Amino acid sequence: MDSDGFTTGGDAYPDGPAADDSFQIRSVAVLGLGLIGGSVARDLATRGVRVLAWDRDEHAVRDAEVRGIARPLAWNDPHPADPPIDVVLLALPVLAEKELLPRVADRFPRARLITDAGSTQRSVVALAERLGIGARFVGSHPLAGDHRSGWAASRTGLFAHARVFLSPAPSAGPDAMGLAEALWTALGGRTEPVDAAEHDRRVAWTSHLPQLVSSALGGSLAGEGIARAELGPGGRDTTRLAGSSPALWTDVALDNADEIVPALRAAEDRLRALRLAIAAGGAERVRGLLDEARRWHHQAP
Amino acid sequence: MDSDGFTTGGDAYPDGPAADDSFQIRSVAVLGLGLIGGSVARDLATRGVRVLAWDRDEHAVRDAEVRGIARPLAWNDPHPADPPIDVVLLALPVLAEKELLPRVADRFPRARLITDAGSTQRSVVALAERLGIGARFVGSHPLAGDHRSGWAASRTGLFAHARVFLSPAPSAGPDAMGLAEALWTALGGRTEPVDAAEHDRRVAWTSHLPQLVSSALGGSLAGEGIARAELGPGGRDTTRLAGSSPALWTDVALDNADEIVPALRAAEDRLRALRLAIAAGGAERVRGLLDEARRWHHQAP
Repeated sequence: MDSDGFTTGGDAYPDGPAADDSFQIRSVAVLGLGLIGGSVARDLATRGVRVLAWDRDEHAVRDAEVRGIARPLAWNDPHPADPPIDVVLLALPVLAEKELLPRVADRFPRARLITDAGSTQRSVVALAERLGIGARFVGSHPLAGDHRSGWAASRTGLFAHARVFLSPAPSAGPDAMGLAEALWTALGGRTEPVDAAEHDRRVAWTSHLPQLVSSALGGSLAGEGIARAELGPGGRDTTRLAGSSPALWTDVALDNADEIVPALRAAEDRLRALRLAIAAGGAERVRGLLDEARRWHHQAP
Repeated sequence: MDSDGFTTGGDAYPDGPAADDSFQIRSVAVLGLGLIGGSVARDLATRGVRVLAWDRDEHAVRDAEVRGIARPLAWNDPHPADPPIDVVLLALPVLAEKELLPRVADRFPRARLITDAGSTQRSVVALAERLGIGARFVGSHPLAGDHRSGWAASRTGLFAHARVFLSPAPSAGPDAMGLAEALWTALGGRTEPVDAAEHDRRVAWTSHLPQLVSSALGGSLAGEGIARAELGPGGRDTTRLAGSSPALWTDVALDNADEIVPALRAAEDRLRALRLAIAAGGAERVRGLLDEARRWHHQAP
């Protein structure tokens, strides 16, 4: 990463990649203290960053305050926190994020980076441009999801070695992009820039499709009255994602519908092909379908 | 388990459930040295049982001999091994098992138990009755599969705490059933008797459906040119089973086709319902489908 434009942040990050004085994030507003936002807040607090937090669940905010992780964000304070917030992180389901973004644009006019932790990027990046904050907006998508969710599931170290996709708004400047890279790198992530549209196409297949297939399988078993405890280790792995947050994934699915629908259709087609081949006793066809999946599974990364 | 009919097997099983002198399996023929058969052979050898082994892969048999685990089974020996074989285990894909079973019936007329390690039971149990060996036949299905396969993947302790379904042939006697329970219990498994037809119906949902859904998902991603390395932890879990043996699962799918086809159709229906709801922007419907799967995932066992 180019460290141009970075000033020293002192020695608050003794063991991170930022220990070379190139890190300058001193204060972060975290909106949403769920698994992702809560874990970011915990990591940043450990590193000495001043964290202001908001969540619609006041208990989470109070707990974060009691633990010395964050102070409550005073939305209605006419004199915003001093020193000003460097980075605003919206760690909310995508529809809630889009509802909140206009207010964030008003409230943090001097924040140098506004970012998120979303599973989809196109619609958010487009909204940021429309709100006139594109120059300071970089969408983030850390691949650190979990079927557990909420503040109680958040923890330090969640982003160690995690891939983090960064989708800058078209007008985003190098300062915002550099801060986004610095933020996630300091948390242990490995950032990868990717255009928002390409991001959404790719994650429809790599993330959203497995999630929805796992949920469809879980729903099928629920409909048949088969308990998850009856499954072997393989079946439990295949249905692990079915435990994910329905609210979160409903937002993702609707926000990325145009990319997800063809992916779901492809999975249906494969299931149907397997079913028809099995019903017809077509051993070669069944083996061919299974073999294609196995070769895919075994291919070198 | 009723221990009637059991004689002492000496002290060859110092730490197993059989240390109460109720175990009497002294010699076992293992046909098929894959993950399951190889692991059974290793465990039995550790416990001092005499193991004769056959596999179409002569290298596996030689390797088992070199390691002192098993001696090669001499199929064509006119004077079969002395002392006679107590138990014959067919650990082969189900179609290969059915091809071999007539020869096994001829070759081991005095074996007190003929069993297997199959994912399906109805057709095998029916064949055993037709061959006149039903009184000595108990189908076994240890839930200890793995996406790895073959002799190289086999290991001691594979069956520790594993559920093992036992489906006796209709005419199977208590001696055969007792030996099957003793065999798997000595290997650390927890046996559960289940009628063969009920077994096949249940595993179509608990085991075969997750396998085929995982393969269909892997095939979809292969078709789109998405590498497995691009997936997050959740996606990798969901596609883990796609790495399973195509030959083994082709046999299973065709052997249990009548139970598997409706299960596959149910999964297709769920995927289609999700796709249509997402395409229509139906948030409530999408959330309802995801929520049913999540409640199923979270239900107490």
